[in-house]
Amino acid sequence: MADFEQKIPEGDTRPRAICRTCGFIDYENPKIVAGAVVSYDGRILLCRRAIEPRANFWTLPAGFLEAHEQPEEGALREVREEACADIILEGLIGIYTIRHLSQVQMFFRARFAGPPAFAAGDETLDARLFAWEEIPWDDIAFPSVTWTLNHWRTGQDGMPNLAFSTAV
Amino acid sequence: MADFEQKIPEGDTRPRAICRTCGFIDYENPKIVAGAVVSYDGRILLCRRAIEPRANFWTLPAGFLEAHEQPEEGALREVREEACADIILEGLIGIYTIRHLSQVQMFFRARFAGPPAFAAGDETLDARLFAWEEIPWDDIAFPSVTWTLNHWRTGQDGMPNLAFSTAV
Repeated sequence: MADFEQKIPEGDTRPRAICRTCGFIDYENPKIVAGAVVSYDGRILLCRRAIEPRANFWTLPAGFLEAHEQPEEGALREVREEACADIILEGLIGIYTIRHLSQVQMFFRARFAGPPAFAAGDETLDARLFAWEEIPWDDIAFPSVTWTLNHWRTGQDGMPNLAFSTAV
Repeated sequence: MADFEQKIPEGDTRPRAICRTCGFIDYENPKIVAGAVVSYDGRILLCRRAIEPRANFWTLPAGFLEAHEQPEEGALREVREEACADIILEGLIGIYTIRHLSQVQMFFRARFAGPPAFAAGDETLDARLFAWEEIPWDDIAFPSVTWTLNHWRTGQDGMPNLAFSTAV
């Protein structure tokens, strides 16, 4: 069994989780979450979560970035997995650091690649387009979903997005 | 000894590194690198690396984000560690995904918090302010340093930066 203790490795400056059984050092770095606000005709795609945490609450499609992925690709993949939709990204809405979870969340503005087509994926009970006035604010899964929706709205009126993003 | 094999954990969809000795699953996610372009009077702070990789080459102060840090804080910390400088951030320059290293690098525009004061930190041989024409392009440590410097320059003329960034 993995059995971690906190110890400062040689040549390092801070304690790391080191396995007493096998000596593996688990450098704990923040994880990136990538997701999207997909809108169509002013309405926004939300997913009702089928899984914990926050099952039954509504969220933007989003999830952990996989190794070697660009955040943009992670957002495309998560929207495909959770809402069965193919989308085109239109720029970064915001970057949200959730300290206690050690997460850096990146949300992108997006539209459907073709006519609006979506469905509930494996981790989703229901996927729906909501007009702004219809958004179920009391049943939103995570605070960063609310922040992102508000920043999405602020950035609506042709505000350019100047965060460069490049991948090699 | 840690002894990893690639196997798909129960309920997962892709192979992960699982330790044969202790069963620990090492979910491999991209790591975030945060750094800054600190400028003073049109000149840019570069550091000559004291350590591998790319020892002796010039770089922007930058490094791995630690657990629970906001990218902005990581940039401040790295500039303090590598160039002994206190700075104030002025916005995001760019986000660079380095696929083969599984890194997402974030660089910020910055100025000195007070009069320009800096020195070589532990991992730095030399810290210096370079005018644009003086930048040692042939001796730059990493491609993303060159991209960042060019994006920094493009964004010079009062271009606003609209990437929201919030931390809790």
